[in-house]
Amino acid sequence: MAPTIRDVAKAAGVSVATASKGLNGKGRMRPETRQRIVDIARDIGFRANRNASSLTTGRTFTVGLLTRDGYGRFTPPLLGGVEDALSVDTASLILCDARRDAVRERHYVDALVARRVDGLIVTGRATDPAPPLPRTLPFPVLYAYTTSRDEADSSLTVDDEHGGWLAARQLVRQGCRTIAHITGPASYLAVRERVAGARRAFREHGLDLPDERVLHVGFSERAGYTAVERLLASTPGLDGIFCGSDQIGRGVADALGAAGVAVPGDVALVGFDNWTLLAAATRPPLTSVDMNLYRLGRAAGESLLAAIDGDAEPGVRRLPCSLAIRASCPALPGDSTEWTHDTPLVPEA
Amino acid sequence: MAPTIRDVAKAAGVSVATASKGLNGKGRMRPETRQRIVDIARDIGFRANRNASSLTTGRTFTVGLLTRDGYGRFTPPLLGGVEDALSVDTASLILCDARRDAVRERHYVDALVARRVDGLIVTGRATDPAPPLPRTLPFPVLYAYTTSRDEADSSLTVDDEHGGWLAARQLVRQGCRTIAHITGPASYLAVRERVAGARRAFREHGLDLPDERVLHVGFSERAGYTAVERLLASTPGLDGIFCGSDQIGRGVADALGAAGVAVPGDVALVGFDNWTLLAAATRPPLTSVDMNLYRLGRAAGESLLAAIDGDAEPGVRRLPCSLAIRASCPALPGDSTEWTHDTPLVPEA
Repeated sequence: MAPTIRDVAKAAGVSVATASKGLNGKGRMRPETRQRIVDIARDIGFRANRNASSLTTGRTFTVGLLTRDGYGRFTPPLLGGVEDALSVDTASLILCDARRDAVRERHYVDALVARRVDGLIVTGRATDPAPPLPRTLPFPVLYAYTTSRDEADSSLTVDDEHGGWLAARQLVRQGCRTIAHITGPASYLAVRERVAGARRAFREHGLDLPDERVLHVGFSERAGYTAVERLLASTPGLDGIFCGSDQIGRGVADALGAAGVAVPGDVALVGFDNWTLLAAATRPPLTSVDMNLYRLGRAAGESLLAAIDGDAEPGVRRLPCSLAIRASCPALPGDSTEWTHDTPLVPEA
Repeated sequence: MAPTIRDVAKAAGVSVATASKGLNGKGRMRPETRQRIVDIARDIGFRANRNASSLTTGRTFTVGLLTRDGYGRFTPPLLGGVEDALSVDTASLILCDARRDAVRERHYVDALVARRVDGLIVTGRATDPAPPLPRTLPFPVLYAYTTSRDEADSSLTVDDEHGGWLAARQLVRQGCRTIAHITGPASYLAVRERVAGARRAFREHGLDLPDERVLHVGFSERAGYTAVERLLASTPGLDGIFCGSDQIGRGVADALGAAGVAVPGDVALVGFDNWTLLAAATRPPLTSVDMNLYRLGRAAGESLLAAIDGDAEPGVRRLPCSLAIRASCPALPGDSTEWTHDTPLVPEA
């Protein structure tokens, strides 16, 4: 068993009350006595019970992280960022996976209330803004990589419009003029926002992206692969493809290779997600939009700590994307490193 | 603020002591009074402070999960299993990512001691058994997907030897006789154990796997891709390849396709990890060994709960793998579904 304050008191030959005052720096006491109590506590390995001290400080230095969509591929960098932000506060992260199940979610939220967490981060990508948690929770809530439908809540997510703009701009700068977009279902808000961003970039250069060149096929490699044949037949002069995910991009690159179309010579490619493991293994390696999820997680953790201190920022904030440049749509003279970094912010497994 | 026991007492018109006794089922009290207190507590949304009750029960119903290698691709299913096992005990999971940094690890372990967690799961694949945590921790520790060097500790990991045996056996049953193995560095214990398992399967069928047909090249697609040319030149009659990861398998399949070698007609392939997203997108889809990490996580959680109840099981236990059958080495008549399931136990993101 871990040493208790009683063990410290006994070893120091003082009362429990004196030992406690000595350790927490309170009360009147001779400096030598205090130092002796502190030394003895260290020597016998005493550590304050943080759960007990929370009863007086009003904080538990625990934060819940509720994920609604399981621990997917996008969770690890986000988690790493949240954890790094919280470590400044020495707060611990309690993990809850609701798995799109309202009953599980309710159960977890109740448990976090019972644990008196200081705050909660809700995460998980949904096709649309998520239903908010009850407004009566006794701690601040921050939505990260998802947004609450309630504008009074605080949400922090990816600027997908900016990501679409970055991808399209890179293709235009590469010299592409007849560009298509292969992506997932239009029911996803992120998909619609990326299309809007791409169109903005094209407009800025006097180009357009007509509806018939936006293919909503799904986020898989197979969807990308099979879309290429249709696209090559329907789009004479096709010279660039913005792929809605690196999985799509991988399938597209393979299909172009099989059709004898050179990448980037004939058709340049930009993907989305900067999933290094897949993008770097594509032939040729895939230029891709990075959502900077580690940075998003870090900002979410910092924002929640601010809210716990009474400084909440309601509304939806969107953080910019960046671009990881590889051979499928290479760097150009004058590219700023600000948006061309290719170094993952956290090591990949 | 959340309602307190004082609010319950006030609303019920009883003392705090009576309200407390009414809620925890202790003390003598008329059943109607107890029911009224319980009803009022529910109506005003009172929930017991679990942190406070831990001071009397001696348990905090929290468990730490310390990952040594970050949140990699293998963490999500493991986490999901641990969480499901703990939910039976309504225990919460506190997450700590040591990132191969001894100082961070020490900091986290100290924090978990200060929080009085009931137990700790240590995870993270290492090239070799991991150095154990201090034996003086005031709670049980379980090593999962990694093993402790100290045999007195409890470890639960993957039976890599069995995984290698399954892969090789499937190739042999497919009719392969001249089989090669492309895998990662021999410095990894898991790599050596898979080789040993494959050799056992071959011996059982009067075949062998000579050293020159074991290529330790690395776990990437590129490594798999480039190894194929060498292998085709050096191994006449090559008809099967056991790939040490699905990434290697993906590169091998692409290289064989580029060389005009039919899979599985000329050369059959089996991968490792059953990373559906990659294995199912391979052309042809890749048969692959599944480490059943969700099941491992679940068993680890259950084992830790048993240890918390005083029923620790020291030593290293290894859980069997299974095989996900796809076109690169297809199912055969008589294959038992027991080891041919292709349904991920948890949904992939």
